[in-house]
Amino acid sequence: MTNIGKRGIHYLQRLNAANVPKDLIENGQNRVIEASLTLIRERAKLKGELLRALGGVVASSSLLGVPLGHNSSFLQGPAFAPPRIREAIWCGSTNSTTEEGHDLNDPRVLTDVGDVPVQELRDCGVDDDRLMSIISDSVKLVMEEAPLRPLVLGGDHSISFPVVRAVSEKLGGPVDILHLDAHPDIYHSFEGNKYSHASSFARIMEGGYARRLLQKLGEGVKGVYISLDVDCLDPAFAPGVSHIEPGGLSFRDVLNILHNLKGDIVAADVVEFNPQRDTVDGMTAMVAAKLVRELTAKISK
Amino acid sequence: MTNIGKRGIHYLQRLNAANVPKDLIENGQNRVIEASLTLIRERAKLKGELLRALGGVVASSSLLGVPLGHNSSFLQGPAFAPPRIREAIWCGSTNSTTEEGHDLNDPRVLTDVGDVPVQELRDCGVDDDRLMSIISDSVKLVMEEAPLRPLVLGGDHSISFPVVRAVSEKLGGPVDILHLDAHPDIYHSFEGNKYSHASSFARIMEGGYARRLLQKLGEGVKGVYISLDVDCLDPAFAPGVSHIEPGGLSFRDVLNILHNLKGDIVAADVVEFNPQRDTVDGMTAMVAAKLVRELTAKISK
Amino acid sequence: MTNIGKRGIHYLQRLNAANVPKDLIENGQNRVIEASLTLIRERAKLKGELLRALGGVVASSSLLGVPLGHNSSFLQGPAFAPPRIREAIWCGSTNSTTEEGHDLNDPRVLTDVGDVPVQELRDCGVDDDRLMSIISDSVKLVMEEAPLRPLVLGGDHSISFPVVRAVSEKLGGPVDILHLDAHPDIYHSFEGNKYSHASSFARIMEGGYARRLLQKLGEGVKGVYISLDVDCLDPAFAPGVSHIEPGGLSFRDVLNILHNLKGDIVAADVVEFNPQRDTVDGMTAMVAAKLVRELTAKISK
Amino acid sequence: MTNIGKRGIHYLQRLNAANVPKDLIENGQNRVIEASLTLIRERAKLKGELLRALGGVVASSSLLGVPLGHNSSFLQGPAFAPPRIREAIWCGSTNSTTEEGHDLNDPRVLTDVGDVPVQELRDCGVDDDRLMSIISDSVKLVMEEAPLRPLVLGGDHSISFPVVRAVSEKLGGPVDILHLDAHPDIYHSFEGNKYSHASSFARIMEGGYARRLLQKLGEGVKGVYISLDVDCLDPAFAPGVSHIEPGGLSFRDVLNILHNLKGDIVAADVVEFNPQRDTVDGMTAMVAAKLVRELTAKISK
Amino acid sequence: MTNIGKRGIHYLQRLNAANVPKDLIENGQNRVIEASLTLIRERAKLKGELLRALGGVVASSSLLGVPLGHNSSFLQGPAFAPPRIREAIWCGSTNSTTEEGHDLNDPRVLTDVGDVPVQELRDCGVDDDRLMSIISDSVKLVMEEAPLRPLVLGGDHSISFPVVRAVSEKLGGPVDILHLDAHPDIYHSFEGNKYSHASSFARIMEGGYARRLLQKLGEGVKGVYISLDVDCLDPAFAPGVSHIEPGGLSFRDVLNILHNLKGDIVAADVVEFNPQRDTVDGMTAMVAAKLVRELTAKISK
Amino acid sequence: MTNIGKRGIHYLQRLNAANVPKDLIENGQNRVIEASLTLIRERAKLKGELLRALGGVVASSSLLGVPLGHNSSFLQGPAFAPPRIREAIWCGSTNSTTEEGHDLNDPRVLTDVGDVPVQELRDCGVDDDRLMSIISDSVKLVMEEAPLRPLVLGGDHSISFPVVRAVSEKLGGPVDILHLDAHPDIYHSFEGNKYSHASSFARIMEGGYARRLLQKLGEGVKGVYISLDVDCLDPAFAPGVSHIEPGGLSFRDVLNILHNLKGDIVAADVVEFNPQRDTVDGMTAMVAAKLVRELTAKISK
Repeated sequence: MTNIGKRGIHYLQRLNAANVPKDLIENGQNRVIEASLTLIRERAKLKGELLRALGGVVASSSLLGVPLGHNSSFLQGPAFAPPRIREAIWCGSTNSTTEEGHDLNDPRVLTDVGDVPVQELRDCGVDDDRLMSIISDSVKLVMEEAPLRPLVLGGDHSISFPVVRAVSEKLGGPVDILHLDAHPDIYHSFEGNKYSHASSFARIMEGGYARRLLQKLGEGVKGVYISLDVDCLDPAFAPGVSHIEPGGLSFRDVLNILHNLKGDIVAADVVEFNPQRDTVDGMTAMVAAKLVRELTAKISK
Repeated sequence: MTNIGKRGIHYLQRLNAANVPKDLIENGQNRVIEASLTLIRERAKLKGELLRALGGVVASSSLLGVPLGHNSSFLQGPAFAPPRIREAIWCGSTNSTTEEGHDLNDPRVLTDVGDVPVQELRDCGVDDDRLMSIISDSVKLVMEEAPLRPLVLGGDHSISFPVVRAVSEKLGGPVDILHLDAHPDIYHSFEGNKYSHASSFARIMEGGYARRLLQKLGEGVKGVYISLDVDCLDPAFAPGVSHIEPGGLSFRDVLNILHNLKGDIVAADVVEFNPQRDTVDGMTAMVAAKLVRELTAKISK
Repeated sequence: MTNIGKRGIHYLQRLNAANVPKDLIENGQNRVIEASLTLIRERAKLKGELLRALGGVVASSSLLGVPLGHNSSFLQGPAFAPPRIREAIWCGSTNSTTEEGHDLNDPRVLTDVGDVPVQELRDCGVDDDRLMSIISDSVKLVMEEAPLRPLVLGGDHSISFPVVRAVSEKLGGPVDILHLDAHPDIYHSFEGNKYSHASSFARIMEGGYARRLLQKLGEGVKGVYISLDVDCLDPAFAPGVSHIEPGGLSFRDVLNILHNLKGDIVAADVVEFNPQRDTVDGMTAMVAAKLVRELTAKISK
Repeated sequence: MTNIGKRGIHYLQRLNAANVPKDLIENGQNRVIEASLTLIRERAKLKGELLRALGGVVASSSLLGVPLGHNSSFLQGPAFAPPRIREAIWCGSTNSTTEEGHDLNDPRVLTDVGDVPVQELRDCGVDDDRLMSIISDSVKLVMEEAPLRPLVLGGDHSISFPVVRAVSEKLGGPVDILHLDAHPDIYHSFEGNKYSHASSFARIMEGGYARRLLQKLGEGVKGVYISLDVDCLDPAFAPGVSHIEPGGLSFRDVLNILHNLKGDIVAADVVEFNPQRDTVDGMTAMVAAKLVRELTAKISK
Repeated sequence: MTNIGKRGIHYLQRLNAANVPKDLIENGQNRVIEASLTLIRERAKLKGELLRALGGVVASSSLLGVPLGHNSSFLQGPAFAPPRIREAIWCGSTNSTTEEGHDLNDPRVLTDVGDVPVQELRDCGVDDDRLMSIISDSVKLVMEEAPLRPLVLGGDHSISFPVVRAVSEKLGGPVDILHLDAHPDIYHSFEGNKYSHASSFARIMEGGYARRLLQKLGEGVKGVYISLDVDCLDPAFAPGVSHIEPGGLSFRDVLNILHNLKGDIVAADVVEFNPQRDTVDGMTAMVAAKLVRELTAKISK
Repeated sequence: MTNIGKRGIHYLQRLNAANVPKDLIENGQNRVIEASLTLIRERAKLKGELLRALGGVVASSSLLGVPLGHNSSFLQGPAFAPPRIREAIWCGSTNSTTEEGHDLNDPRVLTDVGDVPVQELRDCGVDDDRLMSIISDSVKLVMEEAPLRPLVLGGDHSISFPVVRAVSEKLGGPVDILHLDAHPDIYHSFEGNKYSHASSFARIMEGGYARRLLQKLGEGVKGVYISLDVDCLDPAFAPGVSHIEPGGLSFRDVLNILHNLKGDIVAADVVEFNPQRDTVDGMTAMVAAKLVRELTAKISK
């Protein structure tokens, strides 16, 4: 758990000990949660309205940041990833065109609905079960605004569970998942935490939110979900991750997998980028940004 | 202007060219702004209610992040500062006690109301005049919840203008300002931008929001405001700033000034910390965090 | 344009405004240009005389630095590359033998004629058209001293145009070009600059200085020119470039292309190495130096 | 000796062994030296003519780079310093005004005559005695063009000897020297090298080129010379030096010494900045640049 | 506790569970401890014999490394400090003479008896009580070989307790302590660990091994002990420490305290240098090495 | 030779000049050597006894560190490698399971017998011939305690000679060697040093300690020895080596070679990891640790 999260909880314990009425706290939390979801709803609604007014778009990637790092067993840096990835997508040292020629400056290709305020909710003492629900609700708010499709920026890998759950529930059936990762993430629980980043896919399969991983994708299901853990890349290509595992894929290997993938991509995530372990010049941020660009090209049409 | 900000504007230009109704955009922006302020109001209200329930507190520091970097003439990194400073306040390599013994884990000493969603507002096409108003409104929402007093985390120095304006308007008269900075920041405008970080104090004085800088503080005014630009420190002590100016103060010099300051400190800011120019181990983040800790000790009582 | 270049021009504008006679400036510039070319001529002549006195050499690589960074759209660091590459060629942490056994300490294999004084010329107010001519003239001065063949150290990719132009004009016909690059560099112009590093090959093809790129090299033309943009390598192998584009070649891929290349290599360049984005220990400098070593082995005989 | 220098000498030894006529080498070297000095003369002449045409200037700082690192006992990085200092003087993260308000963009305050081509001369086999003469000759070429006064960018501290010799000979008598350094540099010779950076002031005093160091400056002599070794600063303020000696001056200490100095400053040097040991963001380059700016303010009038 | 230490303990737990006889383990541990102390005894004996053969030395500093990091509450890096400090003492970028002119190359001024094999003992399952005894025994072995006096290289601050205990017991009475530190280190225990680096001086005072801290040193006691925690320096001067506390001393401040200190210095330690948080070029290692050099000058006579 | 080594020798020269009896020195050295070997013997014995008591193990990897860097022609950093590799094996950011599922926390899979105290021996004036014998003796002490098999952590590549010599002598015949390296290391001697890291395999073949390199391994010999020079990897995968040679293997290439290797692996080494050239976050340490993990899986059974 992050120190900020711990602080939130210590703080409530002190308040309980001081006989602050429980109601006062619960009502306040409810109002903060409601305001958080309203902000995401309004941004999604604005972007959806604009794209519908423009017309001619069937599916359009929309970034949703989930800056959550406290379910990682080692370092909490992934909580800092979403603003770094956004910066790298638009920064001057790269171009905003995908390998197949889509221009990300076109709002029909990419929009942004901002971040779930994870740290702020935890500082108000919101617990993990509720936080996971808020993440699922946020994803659904994006999906309600067709043609938007969520492209989620983690955060650690624990976020894939509430995201896939929302996608599956919203579509009314399981999805197929292309899961690129140096680790299977299917521990039943890890160090007693059922939402651990190492248990995300155990939760997904257990809930029936997905049918299978990485084969004959997209037939007979509601669509394909792509989950890219940045540590599937060898650390030579992506040093900025919490769990270094030499012997991984090259960046071109990942691009080849993406370019050859068939099926209707309904949503995706890019997780486990840890800016605190990146190089000084932010090479992994650039890598994560290019993954987002190429996922955008797969989703938007 | 940040690339994200530029993108927001290009995007609206395209939409205008595509004959998207202007109403649709304005209504959407208004709803997003309203939701943004609601989220800050609800967090401030929850914190205020809790402190009032606890009782015995006259004044209490409350962090408000303003991640705005686009009015800086050189690098935009200060937009990334608020989460880094919060992390450094609570991280394990330092302690959470001030030099004079206040414990920051006590909610009566320090609370947090989160960030103004600056980047998200700009991505919706909100312009600078309106953004400055939203920052002022956010500061006032904190001040409405006595005993909370705003301790603002920048962001570049341009944020001091809307913050001091709000403090002055809320208190009903000018304040005195202790302004520690390597640069005077009193250009009438800089490169055509009246909200430039180099013009913040020109705006403040012009608006009558402050009476004087750095002398006989606090008598005959509504209180004292402290504005700490991290670059007042020599870069040996704080390398993580956008504008390197060798020959500055030592950290102990700044502490001595703060410890000797008299008067009722009504609000404060810590600005111009740029995480993108910090050392690998984040030394300037630690320095900014200790400035926040010592400011907390001056404000809370 | 570099700040130094901008300064050169501001400075001349002030002088014009102060009614300094135009003649005085033009005559001074002409004398500085003449002296710059004389220095290159004399170094090339000394090296050529020595090799001819030694005898038995048909073709011999001769380094010519072109520290020009101001036509890059993003960072100007490539202007610092030539001294770093030279240092890496001769430094103690590597050996001075090519993969196929040539010893670079043998002057018949590699000599050096120094740098075109690009920054100094710009500081005297020399404009881009004239600078491009001076670069072409410098390359021709090297080629006049058989058996020297130019191995040009950039600088950004805009230098390939004046270099290829000189090679083609000196040989009396077009050359074939092996061009390894993450980007095509064939924009007609970029942000209004016809000498932009993104337009170099547009200029080359437009002038008829080359016949084709990368197929059946060397037949029916005056020879083969190799242009190596360091960013053709994946950033894992060469992080020190201005424009990061994940998904590039491995170092071994590039060596295989070079080792398998047939034809008479008449000249070459290594461009876009940016020392300001290199790792602390200078890994990309080592990579650029090994590219120079292997190009030397292809040219010298 | 640098590896490049060693290479120059090995190369000539091979040529001698191969019976290349000695005349051929000597004549070539002479022509290269002549061309090198001509380039400096022409740039100084152009700058001098322009200032005289502008009028109203009594003394004006003119940068002369001496990128020489081979007489240092440890690391050769100071050879890379001049371009880095120039870049830091003009870069966007600082301002171009001195603490007392001189604007460096005014050519009457600061001009630049470029670098002595030290590495290129050594690569042609030019030995140390001759190199020291060329440096002295270059300084005299600047002084011939009144109102220019040399502000020399090292290089290691061994360059102070040929610079002070030239200044003294040109003025016709000894100068006083303000010498700020963590080390006395008055070894008779160091590791057998009489031009070692640790012997520079032994050579200066032995030649009668200076009268005394650091007391009652400027009376009864031809003027005052300031020699600033960057390592006089504590490594906290200037980590980018070859010889780390904790316990040095603060930057403000050095500024105070400079601001309080009386006398006619006839020339100055800034030496021993080593970019290869600087921080990633180049803090010592900024420090060296500010030293140059403040020296400029002392010299120009 | 370090991971290596944890591993030692897990490993013994497994062995116990597997019914490996307890005797076998205890006998093996005893033999390893005996061999560890023998190695230190023999090195101290050799150095002592040599100095006594040379003659004329009353007191002589002898380095003893104690690479222990597991009692630190945050980072374990101080376990890596002793070899880095030794390297920095003898490396080429500094000189081996103290500020007052002692030459450390003279064995009468400084010898070295190597490291207590802390990690190897812990990997054999040796517990903390026993480890503290082994450190005390090692210090006594050095003191038995007059004129050697221990100059201990930590390790974290928890090592000061067993070192001072040994010095006091060997001299037969309490010592005075000059303790320079950003933190008092007098918690009774910290997170349940009575040997915590934050409790070292609580243990020392409780045991009667020292009489007072930092006043009227050396009168009526057996001598003066100097304990230098590197974090007494501001992080600008010594960034490589586990616990960053801005506002500390300058390096010159510490030198002044040392140079003005009176009394018979019987032993000393330099603790809490953490190489894993040092700058890339090892500035804090240089600082720690200079502290060792100046302590040597205080001890040896 | 390291500066510490040089110091050892200077020191003895001074002692000789001061007429310290030679006997005194030789006897002291012998006692120190004896104590050093006793410490290794006792640790190996304890680990061997424990494994024999556990039973069921045929062969078990046991780490032996040889922190020797002074035979490298360039940088001495490999002397710091063994503690860094151990830290990376057990640190929290990776897992302790090999790719084929062995758990390194099981003492039957991996034990540790500590380091040969190379620096301490050299500081006592022990010369290179004797040091090489001590390394061989240490390896034999491990092999005497079946089922332990040495997995040696270098140090530079010169250590492979005494290690292979010991393995071959202990087994009574030559071994086959799988040697992965960017350089052949078969110079007869290098810069006059017959123990140079570039001559290690010349010494091995000359002594008849091995039969052949890298073909039809393990038939008709006493077993297979694996020598992994970390610089066989491309510097993109392992930047922390002394001699950068772009164009090397990927990490997956090396794993494939290891996984496909047949034969009885009797011992192994991992050499030339240089922590002083590693990235700030220690990526090469992670790579070296994973090489150790996978070698463990090949050896233990």
